[in-house]
Amino acid sequence: MPDTYRRILLAARPHGLVDDATLRIDDTATVPEPAAGQALVRVRHLSIDPTIRTWMDDAPGYLPPIGIGDVVRSGGIGDVVASATDALPVGSTVFGMLGWQEYALVDGADGSMTVVPPGLDPAMVLGVLGVTGMTAYFGLKDIGRPAAGDTVVVSGAAGATGSVVGQLARIEGAGTVVGIAGSADKCAWLVDELGFDHAINYREEDVAARVRATCPQGIDVYFDNVGGDILDVCLANLAMRARVVLCGAISQYNEDRPVGPRNYLQLIVKRARMEGFLILDYLDRFPAAQLEMAGWVLEGRIQHREHVVEGLEHAGDALNLLFSGGNTGKVVVAV
Amino acid sequence: MPDTYRRILLAARPHGLVDDATLRIDDTATVPEPAAGQALVRVRHLSIDPTIRTWMDDAPGYLPPIGIGDVVRSGGIGDVVASATDALPVGSTVFGMLGWQEYALVDGADGSMTVVPPGLDPAMVLGVLGVTGMTAYFGLKDIGRPAAGDTVVVSGAAGATGSVVGQLARIEGAGTVVGIAGSADKCAWLVDELGFDHAINYREEDVAARVRATCPQGIDVYFDNVGGDILDVCLANLAMRARVVLCGAISQYNEDRPVGPRNYLQLIVKRARMEGFLILDYLDRFPAAQLEMAGWVLEGRIQHREHVVEGLEHAGDALNLLFSGGNTGKVVVAV
Repeated sequence: MPDTYRRILLAARPHGLVDDATLRIDDTATVPEPAAGQALVRVRHLSIDPTIRTWMDDAPGYLPPIGIGDVVRSGGIGDVVASATDALPVGSTVFGMLGWQEYALVDGADGSMTVVPPGLDPAMVLGVLGVTGMTAYFGLKDIGRPAAGDTVVVSGAAGATGSVVGQLARIEGAGTVVGIAGSADKCAWLVDELGFDHAINYREEDVAARVRATCPQGIDVYFDNVGGDILDVCLANLAMRARVVLCGAISQYNEDRPVGPRNYLQLIVKRARMEGFLILDYLDRFPAAQLEMAGWVLEGRIQHREHVVEGLEHAGDALNLLFSGGNTGKVVVAV
Repeated sequence: MPDTYRRILLAARPHGLVDDATLRIDDTATVPEPAAGQALVRVRHLSIDPTIRTWMDDAPGYLPPIGIGDVVRSGGIGDVVASATDALPVGSTVFGMLGWQEYALVDGADGSMTVVPPGLDPAMVLGVLGVTGMTAYFGLKDIGRPAAGDTVVVSGAAGATGSVVGQLARIEGAGTVVGIAGSADKCAWLVDELGFDHAINYREEDVAARVRATCPQGIDVYFDNVGGDILDVCLANLAMRARVVLCGAISQYNEDRPVGPRNYLQLIVKRARMEGFLILDYLDRFPAAQLEMAGWVLEGRIQHREHVVEGLEHAGDALNLLFSGGNTGKVVVAV
């Protein structure tokens, strides 16, 4: 074990994308000894999610902003390499908020760490079986509640959450599943491999015209990962009593002054609702949902991709990939 | 009975407030004879509602736009003066979409007209016991669903709907009831006579600071009649699992390009929902709700005001009153 380790600290709050001024790599921290009740984790893989960008802003959110000078907060997987708690034995693999760093000191008793069963691909644990897949699962099933035959539209459809949402909608019996994504390759993946009925390339197609054409009865469930103009197009094409699931707004996280949905009054015209949720509220239901999801993965009914970026020092670039649309599926950093 | 009657026609679609170019008074129409199944109604009182302004736009809505050259659509009350249908006998008083005109030919069998029990004040029938009061009733109870102790905030609080919403919230057991209105007199009425806990004068006070001060635990139910900045302030101050009831957006109806709520992502942070509704969906539940409301009115638990404008020719001005905030309570035109 080395004496010191690398960490990525938030040096300044970003405006727009993360850049060189945002992050500082520190390699001077001493690898700590676990105190009683603690374990030391060697971080192996980081979950790169759009929400990390929101934690970098000094704005009210569901978690406090990351402090200036603090390690960037992030989910991750690692191996316990030293332990003073029976809950997290040396050699076990754990998931939790490990941060953008090589080592993390964690508590064995506060429930912040979950022991990962052996034999699972870490990228899957962070993706389809992890927070991303669970976000799709609970957001669609609990908030969107598609009925048999419903038209379900998802934006950010080639992302880690969106790609699972569309496949889950199919499993739930949706009549029409439409994905909105940012390249012809992504759209081909959605339709040819994941079983979406239609995919709309928002960079090259008239989204409003294509939504009207692919959803002639209107949208019953719209799962929104992006906000902005695409949210407005979908609001303008809701079916009666539609549900708009607010998962995220990746088009807005880099804006200093976000834009609200101009067409929100269509919620009145269509007696519809727009509802937000946070996956933190569903942690106690994860085991059952993960088991169900694992079954669908084994049956091939849920497919998934991971985009692995090598090297902790590239975590900032990996985060930016989500906003440039450079990824298909789950972005993971191999530390 | 005269040979001809006056009608107000939509001459041009307004931009902003209704003005001289918007409306045309026509006094050349011949008073018609009812055909079999029809009745002729002498219109007595018109219900002046913000939604009429939305019908003047050539935009998708819950009813078709009023056609250029057509009588302005409007709820109203009148007396049957000639009849060829047993459903609507001469001498009965009826409520329905009578329009901005002195006479209306109506159908006795299509359910478009409701016979009003004798002895009721027409302004009450259009207001607290009518569509306005029912909008407050079903919007608050079915969509907002306040629990005992909840903090309920309503905008447009001195209007016909808002004033009833606050009083109903009190009856439903809300812990704190806050109204937002546009003058010191209106605010005094809300607190001193209607039993609101607090009233915020949005023209003279810092709404954000006052909402924070009066709702220290956050807003559980926000009943929105106005949209715009006030909606954004309330979104920024929601409690967990809050319900935002979208009833209208009077700040936006005169805008060619409406603004969406910038703070809508607080719906994620607070696991909250924003939901629209239309009173048209609740017509079958009106009789029971009207009876309950009439009881509360008799007990003095629901108070109401009407602002009666005399003369059909002033209907356009009466509509504009809603947007300038010149009214307290229900605006009615005596034809």
